[in-house]
Amino acid sequence: MSQDSHDRADMTDAEFRMALAQVGDWVAGYREKAGSMPVLSRIAPGDIEKALPMDPPALGEPVAMWLKDLEEIILPGITHWNHPGFMAYFGITGSAAGILGELVSSAINSNGMLWKTCPALTELEQVVLRWYASAIGLPRDWFGMISDTASTSTLVALAAAREATGLNVREEGLSGKPPLVLYCSEEAHSSVDKAGLVLGLGVRGIRRVSSDMALRMRVDALESTIHQDLSEGRRPFAVVATVGTTSATAVDPVPDIAEVCKRHGLWLHVDAAYAGSAAIAHEFRWALAGCDQADSLVVNPHKWLFTPIDCSVLFTRKPEMFREAFSLVPEYLRTDVHGAVDLMDYSFQLGRRFRAIKLWFVFRYFGTEGLAARIREHVRLAQAFASWIDAHPVMERLAPAPFSVVCFRIHPRGTDDEAELQRLNASLLERVNAGGEVFLSHTKLKGRYCLRMAIGNLQTNMHRVQRAFHLICETAGLSS
Amino acid sequence: MSQDSHDRADMTDAEFRMALAQVGDWVAGYREKAGSMPVLSRIAPGDIEKALPMDPPALGEPVAMWLKDLEEIILPGITHWNHPGFMAYFGITGSAAGILGELVSSAINSNGMLWKTCPALTELEQVVLRWYASAIGLPRDWFGMISDTASTSTLVALAAAREATGLNVREEGLSGKPPLVLYCSEEAHSSVDKAGLVLGLGVRGIRRVSSDMALRMRVDALESTIHQDLSEGRRPFAVVATVGTTSATAVDPVPDIAEVCKRHGLWLHVDAAYAGSAAIAHEFRWALAGCDQADSLVVNPHKWLFTPIDCSVLFTRKPEMFREAFSLVPEYLRTDVHGAVDLMDYSFQLGRRFRAIKLWFVFRYFGTEGLAARIREHVRLAQAFASWIDAHPVMERLAPAPFSVVCFRIHPRGTDDEAELQRLNASLLERVNAGGEVFLSHTKLKGRYCLRMAIGNLQTNMHRVQRAFHLICETAGLSS
Repeated sequence: MSQDSHDRADMTDAEFRMALAQVGDWVAGYREKAGSMPVLSRIAPGDIEKALPMDPPALGEPVAMWLKDLEEIILPGITHWNHPGFMAYFGITGSAAGILGELVSSAINSNGMLWKTCPALTELEQVVLRWYASAIGLPRDWFGMISDTASTSTLVALAAAREATGLNVREEGLSGKPPLVLYCSEEAHSSVDKAGLVLGLGVRGIRRVSSDMALRMRVDALESTIHQDLSEGRRPFAVVATVGTTSATAVDPVPDIAEVCKRHGLWLHVDAAYAGSAAIAHEFRWALAGCDQADSLVVNPHKWLFTPIDCSVLFTRKPEMFREAFSLVPEYLRTDVHGAVDLMDYSFQLGRRFRAIKLWFVFRYFGTEGLAARIREHVRLAQAFASWIDAHPVMERLAPAPFSVVCFRIHPRGTDDEAELQRLNASLLERVNAGGEVFLSHTKLKGRYCLRMAIGNLQTNMHRVQRAFHLICETAGLSS
Repeated sequence: MSQDSHDRADMTDAEFRMALAQVGDWVAGYREKAGSMPVLSRIAPGDIEKALPMDPPALGEPVAMWLKDLEEIILPGITHWNHPGFMAYFGITGSAAGILGELVSSAINSNGMLWKTCPALTELEQVVLRWYASAIGLPRDWFGMISDTASTSTLVALAAAREATGLNVREEGLSGKPPLVLYCSEEAHSSVDKAGLVLGLGVRGIRRVSSDMALRMRVDALESTIHQDLSEGRRPFAVVATVGTTSATAVDPVPDIAEVCKRHGLWLHVDAAYAGSAAIAHEFRWALAGCDQADSLVVNPHKWLFTPIDCSVLFTRKPEMFREAFSLVPEYLRTDVHGAVDLMDYSFQLGRRFRAIKLWFVFRYFGTEGLAARIREHVRLAQAFASWIDAHPVMERLAPAPFSVVCFRIHPRGTDDEAELQRLNASLLERVNAGGEVFLSHTKLKGRYCLRMAIGNLQTNMHRVQRAFHLICETAGLSS
């Protein structure tokens, strides 16, 4: 299957089966051993670039050679998101079922830009997203579509919101229009800002509303900012509420924000990328309260639903606004199929891979009860960790921990200078992460630097979380 | 691995290996039989939705059940882009090597938003894109990054172009600025329009310049449109030239367009999504002539480089403009790694999966000579088909065929009414596609309806192309 392959186009069936066995063996082995490697890669910038040839091979090479380089050159450069000690950002899991789904979808390799170009892709996506909506308690008649990342979902939603102003931005553009303004809390994700920049609002058109002590958007501040913008001739058009902020998983008061949006005629987009999936467990349904009033909502199965990256879901009750913003059918894509949805009409992206399969496999493998049980377990682990922090005399939590993320720091008695506390904690973080057993991240909450422990990997268990706590104490020179 | 799985988090190693064998067997079998199924799915809208349960399972189900549904419910709804008779849109191939790469990347499941979050992801992407650039004759010091689709690549490039105007759009937004104008040919892809809409230019800010008889952008028309816009107070800022248009694979005169851009200070973005890969074969290097003068260029390995969807590559010689448009680092993503590229700074998308692996495997399996040989073979097949059309008394080609796409129609003597010719050819297309052996698409060129045969699948061979020609003739009641 190497140099002699000129006389045929691709691997034969026998060669493919053999290669799949070889690569599958590597993959299974990797899954087994990921947890015993340093979670955070230890290479220096440029190490991998230097180890690889400057030029591509002129002639094909056998699978064993690719796997050798994968093992020897690439593997040391991987930060293992699969590691049970990966507790940074939002811990995620590419579950076995999800990986198998990705394999199937890459083999089918269809592009679902139109219903006709792969009816199963469009229809399975609709079915699985109805499953998902009903599993987390959203209206099951909402329209859903999958894209790569929440950055894209939010961008597309805000483009629909911009169109919904009635200012005819699609036809006339933003030049000559009043400045549009978008609102989110100071704790909102950077993807909201980036969407605003792409859409041509400018930094000036993005208001980060202050949050309360629990890091939730202050509705009074939202209301007064809107009033000020209106009085100064600007045109408010959308609010992004967050259910599970990135730093501390705070939940904005969506029902109250929805009231404000209704009063002012603003589009309400909810960023539930992380915490939306928690609602599969009934005791976390509260997190999505009021979201049935939203115009659109994003939730990412690749965050906390055990689906390999990338898989972001956008739900909306106003699909027609997405069509108004985006539908544009050139001759070569015209079809005469009636009663079918062409997903390309709802976004700027034409190409669409068959991402629904992996999400379907995830639901089939775990079932909703299995998914809820695992979400519950992650929350249980995080709550245990939070309780140890709370009980420790030299540690403190800096935010409520409603889900599986805990924000905390060491705070030695007598040290109250924030700069000094930041130095102490940043140094602690660096030393803990250098050990290779766990990988935590950090953030700042109300200007205070803190460490972040985020649980979301299926392999993380109580033993590992205890070990993380002991490591932190040991490294800080504290008893645990 | 089903109902009894509550006591553990995910499949065990043994279960995963077993499941991978089952799913792998289905995948290999699918690859073998795809060519013997009807290429175009025959289901009616709603068939799959009706066949699947309304609700997700509460308890997990065994792999065999997912595979049964995949085979019985999903498979009939697939339009087989893997079929050797798939000659619609741009024919593509998810090669064996590409599928294996996708399997590895889904198992690693890292997110390369920052260098630190998976150094190997960032560095392999840089290395493989340098391979790619040098293989197609682009400057190897250009900066490259992978995204999902050309729609995204073009959107991101035009956002950088908008920033390069010096109008400070990032800070101030488009309101109050002069109307910005973007240029492309009337044959440019719809993704250019969609990017313009997202960016807030409006339909009015997108000029589709007329093309010459060979469907290439008319540089004189470009120049005069720019002059008119300038004289009317608008602000030209970018031109999108196409190397391999979607309808007829025409190549815009990039060197001349680059001159115009230089004269007027416009950003030149080249859409070489399809034809760029052809330049791996030296005799097609001409297609990218002048592209070294471009500011950015998109080329899609998932089109004609045998890489499973999605994999779109954006090259640029001005990465700093992408940073100026997009860089925005919240506290929780700050790192202290020096000398490393954080790819999130160059786009609006934060999440980034490890797409470089599949492209790396494709280069390793085929080698550049193997890739060039297969490109050549596809062109040879298309040229043979074109010659049969040219030799046939009742058929005609409607455009040059520089690569692997042929635009043609039947044109019976005496029938010169365009509406009648469209009816004849649309009916022919429908009947040919209904047979299930081939799937062709259509387009309109200079207002004339025509059929499009596009070769890009590795399984397509001379026998299949001959069969397509005979089928078309037979169906039209013509001798072949």
